Formats: sequence, C-alpha cells, structure tokens
Amino acid sequence: MFVNRMPRYEILSADAMAQLDAGWRRLVTEIGVEFMSDRALDLFREAGQRVEENTVFLDPEFVLEQVAKAPREFDLQARNPEHSVHIGGDTMAFGAVYGPPFVREGDTRRDGTMADYENFARLSQSFSVLDSAGGVVCEPNDTPLDSRHLDMTYALMTLTDKVFMGNVVSGTNARDVIAMSEILFGGREAIERTPVSISLVNCNSPLRWDDRMLDALFEYAAAAQPVVLTPFILMGAMSPVTIPAALVQQMAEALSGIALAQLIRPGCPVVFGSFLSNIDMQSGSPTFGTPESGIGLLCTGQIARHFGLPFRTGGGLTSSQVPDAQAGYEALMTLMPTFLAGANWVMHTAGWLEGGLVAGFEKFVVDCQIVEMLQHEFTPLEIDEGSLAFDAHQEVGHGGHFLGSMHTMERFRTCFYRPFLNSSDNYERWVRGGALDTAARASVIWKKRLEEYEQPTLDEAVRAELEEYVVRRRRELGD
Amino acid sequence: MFVNRMPRYEILSADAMAQLDAGWRRLVTEIGVEFMSDRALDLFREAGQRVEENTVFLDPEFVLEQVAKAPREFDLQARNPEHSVHIGGDTMAFGAVYGPPFVREGDTRRDGTMADYENFARLSQSFSVLDSAGGVVCEPNDTPLDSRHLDMTYALMTLTDKVFMGNVVSGTNARDVIAMSEILFGGREAIERTPVSISLVNCNSPLRWDDRMLDALFEYAAAAQPVVLTPFILMGAMSPVTIPAALVQQMAEALSGIALAQLIRPGCPVVFGSFLSNIDMQSGSPTFGTPESGIGLLCTGQIARHFGLPFRTGGGLTSSQVPDAQAGYEALMTLMPTFLAGANWVMHTAGWLEGGLVAGFEKFVVDCQIVEMLQHEFTPLEIDEGSLAFDAHQEVGHGGHFLGSMHTMERFRTCFYRPFLNSSDNYERWVRGGALDTAARASVIWKKRLEEYEQPTLDEAVRAELEEYVVRRRRELGD
Repeated sequence: MFVNRMPRYEILSADAMAQLDAGWRRLVTEIGVEFMSDRALDLFREAGQRVEENTVFLDPEFVLEQVAKAPREFDLQARNPEHSVHIGGDTMAFGAVYGPPFVREGDTRRDGTMADYENFARLSQSFSVLDSAGGVVCEPNDTPLDSRHLDMTYALMTLTDKVFMGNVVSGTNARDVIAMSEILFGGREAIERTPVSISLVNCNSPLRWDDRMLDALFEYAAAAQPVVLTPFILMGAMSPVTIPAALVQQMAEALSGIALAQLIRPGCPVVFGSFLSNIDMQSGSPTFGTPESGIGLLCTGQIARHFGLPFRTGGGLTSSQVPDAQAGYEALMTLMPTFLAGANWVMHTAGWLEGGLVAGFEKFVVDCQIVEMLQHEFTPLEIDEGSLAFDAHQEVGHGGHFLGSMHTMERFRTCFYRPFLNSSDNYERWVRGGALDTAARASVIWKKRLEEYEQPTLDEAVRAELEEYVVRRRRELGD
Repeated sequence: MFVNRMPRYEILSADAMAQLDAGWRRLVTEIGVEFMSDRALDLFREAGQRVEENTVFLDPEFVLEQVAKAPREFDLQARNPEHSVHIGGDTMAFGAVYGPPFVREGDTRRDGTMADYENFARLSQSFSVLDSAGGVVCEPNDTPLDSRHLDMTYALMTLTDKVFMGNVVSGTNARDVIAMSEILFGGREAIERTPVSISLVNCNSPLRWDDRMLDALFEYAAAAQPVVLTPFILMGAMSPVTIPAALVQQMAEALSGIALAQLIRPGCPVVFGSFLSNIDMQSGSPTFGTPESGIGLLCTGQIARHFGLPFRTGGGLTSSQVPDAQAGYEALMTLMPTFLAGANWVMHTAGWLEGGLVAGFEKFVVDCQIVEMLQHEFTPLEIDEGSLAFDAHQEVGHGGHFLGSMHTMERFRTCFYRPFLNSSDNYERWVRGGALDTAARASVIWKKRLEEYEQPTLDEAVRAELEEYVVRRRRELGD
C-alpha cells in the first residue's frame, strides 16, 4: 500500500464547490433517486424521507447526517497481514482491471477463461505495486455463470494472500463470498471486527440503483464489509455532456447510496466511488484517458474530501485495442491525475485495454510499470546537508563529472528508481537484443513472472474447507 | 500559444525553498562559476566580482540585482502576427525537438537530411499546438557543417511563419541569424523593439559556461534577442545524484548566466532554463520521463517563479527507440508535469525519440496529440446554470440516457475534445480498418499533413534578399 505524502492538486475554488454542492442538493430534492428495492424504500420511508413509487426524494441534510456516520478511514485485512491495507487519508491501494469478457495475449484476442483468471490472480500476487487482484480480473467464460463467483473467490483466496473484492451479481453471491470469508478468517466476528473484502456497487446512472446490486449491498453492509458506491458515468450517455453536471449527478448518486448503506448498518465502511469518462459524440464509443475524465477525476478527489469520505477512481484506462503508444499515454492520462487527486482505492490499475472489454497480459505489465514510476514520483523530496551535496562539488569542480565522486559512490545503488520494463539501451545494444518494443518486452516479463510465481501458503484445513464449500454450493446451484 | 489558467502544482515548502536558496548562494560564493570567455570575465571583474583565472566568485546579492533587471514576461514576434507569442506568466509556447542527428520514419532509422529538416519544419507549421519548429529539428547531415545554420534558418523563415530559435554554435552563426532576422523583420530597430528569435545557451554543467555558446550569448543579448540559459544536467553525471543538489546547481548555473546576460545588455529578455534528467547508474545511459525528472521539473517551475523569471523545461522526452507504449507514457510523464508547472517555453515538445538522438516522424504526431489533450485538460471548468444541466435531468429522468436530450443537442459538436490520433473504434471496426496501431496511424497522418501543407506567403523581395544572404555567406564560409 502506497502512502501519498505529496500535496493534492485541487482545481475547484470554494465558489465552484458551493455551486456543485447546491447542484446535488437540488437533484436529490427535486428529481430524487430511484431505488429498485422494497427494502431500500422501506428504510428511507422509515427514516422520514418522501417516497413515491421507486423514487426517494431526499432531504440533503438527512443525507449528510447518514454520510457522517461512515468512517473517514478504515482498515481492510488481508490473510497475509503484510498485505493488509488502510483505505482513506493519504493511502492509495491498487487493484487489477475488473470486468473484461475478453483477454489479449500478444496478437491473440479471445474469450477469457478460468485459466486466464488464475494467471491474472498470480500476476497480481507477483507485482508488489498491486494491493489486490481486484474481483473479476476477467470473465472466466468457460465456467458456469451461476457458480463462477465461487471459483473466482476461491482463486483470489488461494492464489493470492492480498485483499480481494466481493462478487456483487446478486445477494446470494454476496452471501457466498461472506461465508467463504468467514472460513478464511475464522468466523463472522473476525470479519466484522476488521473487514476482509471490498465490493463494487454501481449506480445505474442516471439516478437509479438496481435491485441485484442493492441486494449485494444489503449483505455486505450488514456484515460491515466496505462497499464502493459508484456512479457509472460516461458523459453524454449516462449524464449530461457537461462536466459540472456529471459531478453533481455523481454526488447525488454516491451520497444517496452511502446514505442507504448507513441505514442498513450505521458506521459501515463505504467508499465514495467514481467511474467518469465520456463518449465520442460522433460514434457513440466510450473513450478513456480523455481531458474531460482527467478534470473530472481531479474534482472528484476534492469533492470526496469535502464530505470526509475515502474515494475510488482512476486506473490505467484506454480505448486502445493493443498495448501501443496510445495505450501508454491514455493510461497515464488517468493514472497521473489518480495520484494528483490521491485516490484511496484504485480499480482497473493494471491490464485494462479496449475500453475495458479486454484484459491484456502485456498491458498489465505496462500499467504496473507506470504505477511503480508514479509511486516514486509522488514521494516527497528530502532536503538536508547530505542531499545538497556541497562536498561533491568541492570534490568534482567545474566541468567535471560526478560518476566517481564519494557522494555518488555512497548512493548509486538506490539514488534513482530503476524501471523493470523501460529500455534505455543504446540503439546498437537494443538491436542486438532483438529490437523488442515495449509490448514484446512486457510479454517476456509476465511469462517469467508466472514461471517464478510461488503460491502463498495457506493452512490445509482452511483450504479444504473452502474447497468443500465451493463444491457443495456449486452442486446446490445445479452446475 | 496556450494560456494555462489552471493552478500550479507546487511541492516545495517555504522551508525547502529557503534551503535551496541557501544552497545556490553557497555554491556561487565558495565554488564559483567558470566562464571560458575573457569578455565575460572582464564584465564580472568590472562589476566588482572576484575573478580567479576563469572562475567568478559571485556575490549572491549582486546576482539577484542583475536578475531583477530581466523582464518577468516579454513578447516574441513571429512574421505572422497571429503566431507571435508571449513568454512568461500563464503562457506556454511549444517548439519541436531540438538537436537529433538521426531520423526515424516507420521502421527506418537513418541520418537526418536537409529534406527531413524541411519536412519537420512543414509539420511544425501544420500542427497548431506547436508555436515553433524550434531550431535544429534534426541535423541536416547532408549539408556542410560550417554553413548549415544558414540553410536551417532560411527554412525556418520561409517554410514556417512561426517564431524560431537562433543558432548558437558560435558568435559568427549568431550574427548570421541576427542579420537574416533584420532582413525578415525590417532592420535592427524592429527586432530590438520586439525580439524575433529565441536561442538556447547551455551550461557545460557542472558550473562551467563554454566560450562558443557565450560568444553566441554576447551577440543575441546585445541585440536584445531572448536567450534561454540552461543548465544541462543528467543527474549522476553532470550533477550529484540527489535532486536537491541538482536543483541548487541549476539555480547557480542559470542565475549566473542570466547575470552575465544582464551585464551585456541590462533588461535583455532571458529565460530560466532547465534540462534535468538522470542516468541509469548501472549502464550510464541517460534516461527520460523518470520520476526524478518529474519531481525536478515541478520544483523548477516553483524556483523560476521565486526569482520572477519565465522558465523553460519539459518536452515529450523518452528513452524509447520506437514510438511504442514506453514512448507514450514517458513523453506524458514529462509533458503532464510541464503543464502542472506551467512551463513558459517548452522545447522538445514533438518528435523526441531515443534519448534525443532521433527525431521521429510518427513520434512527432504522437506528441502533438498528447499536447493537444493536455491543453484541453488544463482549461478551467465553467460552472453555471447551463453547465449544471438541471433541465436535462428533468427531461431524461431516472435510468434514461442523455444522447437525445435538448441539452446534449445544443452542445454535442463541441462539448468534448475530439482527438485526431487516438482510436476508440470497436474491435471489429478497428480490424476492418487494417488493425493499425498508434504508430501506423501516426504515419498516415504526417504524410497527409505534408501533402496538404501550404507554404505561408512571404514578400518575394524579402525572400530573395534572404536567399542572397545565404548564398553569399555560404560562399564566404567556403562551402
């Protein structure tokens, strides 16, 4: 887990924030938010909010009272305590791409499989910049739809010892994840004391929360497992085409979801979520790494801090079909603002290609490289007598070089970050090495990582109990 | 010329700045700065500074008095007034890559030629994000060394109507550029009233200014043509391995050069220059787009503002040999901080490959794309009733989409920046289009730009006089 002690880059004036603040208040008061769940509607009604059919018209002050019950920061335990993370404040935790049905490996693009899923889980374990494999690193299309959440959760729990994301396809799936978490961590009390999973509940933007994801929210919140309440906004489609409107809508949606989580279980850890980009208004295609999404990201951080909430946004997003130059700069076009804003929980950090339809093995390596560079860049300078190096100047003099100076000798091993993917070979050496471009080098790296991968140890009784649970539930689900 | 009205991202505390300030004062006082020019030494001696052999021991207060004579901001006129720029304050002006002996076109890497040089000049004219072709866009290796500055200057003056950089190989070359500038702009008085060229004078770091570049400085400063006084620092070689030491050295070098410029001609426009990256301590190779250079860049902006000087830094730097993913993210790893710091004069904006040894045609297009995205990203949000779009929510309701809403219809043509290089095609469409990656698409774009290029008009008498000057001087130089 990275601690970002650099300043936050904030671009909203106090006046701008006040205008956005008035905006979400007007939306929840006058347009209201739809909740496609009777349980949710009942909770809001009992709490004194006006409910008409599925629409809840919210009193902004009531919303803020609920939001204030959420912790500003919280711990999330991994089964390996060294991999536990803290969500909020200056911390940033990173998970792999989430959701792609397809996989790219070199020049091949194909349906994702359980074997791919497992390999991505192994790579997430292997790369230290990642705090989590996330959840659905790719869809394991060769496993039955009803029970694949069991296979994925088992893989996350056994192939990695990092924190993991819970399945949110239904309340039933959420109960399975919680049950397996209880097995892994020693019971309900243990996971309620310090949560062990984090789950993504998306809003069906604009202003609608759907039933299945809300069912999952009910389960996780009741078990005090953190939930990332995320407006899913491609501006122009799920929100108006203007960034301020998208931000206001995002506030209305995220805050209303967080209010519900607090009604389910006051004090339940939550994360202010944001997934904000825009479509190409000529083709209708989603686009990523755009200027508009960068601005939205910076504002989102400021807004989440305004409400005292940890927040999720960012990732190595790109529209590119392959891990080429566009993939490189678009990923960084989101990842740099992710650091500038100090996002606390970063999904889609590694592997995202083709607008999120593809999990790419080479892109996974590219993104890990970018994030590792940024982690070094967002580390404050230490200025002291030693780093000012006056003595080195005395030693070297005018027009000399510092390669062999005492000051350099004492520091040369650790003074600069050394990338694992980038090439700075001179041309002749690069040609002798096969003239491999970044994607080709990334291909070598992930294959080597898989070869060298060592599965983290797990108590055999616990593993067996997890397996037993998966086998039994799969049978019950008819798969 | 872009005006960056976003906040600056500043990472140095007041205390850190005070430590750096004490650092450069100690360097110039105790170590001193070497000037390999008797004229320079005489000027410093006459101004009461202690000179021992070639080393000037500077009184920091004297340096600051000289620096205070430099304008905080100044205009630079182009022969097309629409392309004139302002250097300083919130403005950012961008020039192409400077200095590469080699050229890359697709898979071919070869010596640069005058034809390449001219094509890069045409592309610099064509891409509106660039304010200048710069100076030595690539070395025209097929022209004689002694007189190629004439050919390059003639190309810059006739193939572009944007601002240009002066040659700095010698005082003689500088005099030629000034003479040609006088022809183009109508005499010495005209170019002294508002300068027309900007020139790069590098320090031979550490702490040495060499004779030939100083000779050029004398010519340009005397003619009131702005000079960018730039410490050329690859940390670990030309400076100690620690960033604070490099920053302090950069201050001592740039400020001492600026003090000399003010002694030559008080009030002469200058730019606080920075070229700051690091070497790979294992191979000795220069590396670019590094975390260390990013931090240095952010600090440099803050330092230049501290002294009330316009500053130069940034660019689309990369170590990569080809325009691949690394080239994309390394370029942005420098260009994003360039915008965060608000650099006023940005060299190497477009075309830089392979540590600056290669000017790449495809990379040129990639960089122009990145800068255009950043220019849109660094444009402040407008928040008002219209952009908050409450009426659009009333029209669309919960769970609907905004594609056809009135608010969208009114804005869809201009609401989002539309990139010219990035692909967001879906996979099938991308395959039908030939499955071109970014480099392949960039190749199509620069060739099309050259086909469509139209040479800016120039008074025929002026052009003939320039040509005559070039022919005469080439003969005099024996080429």
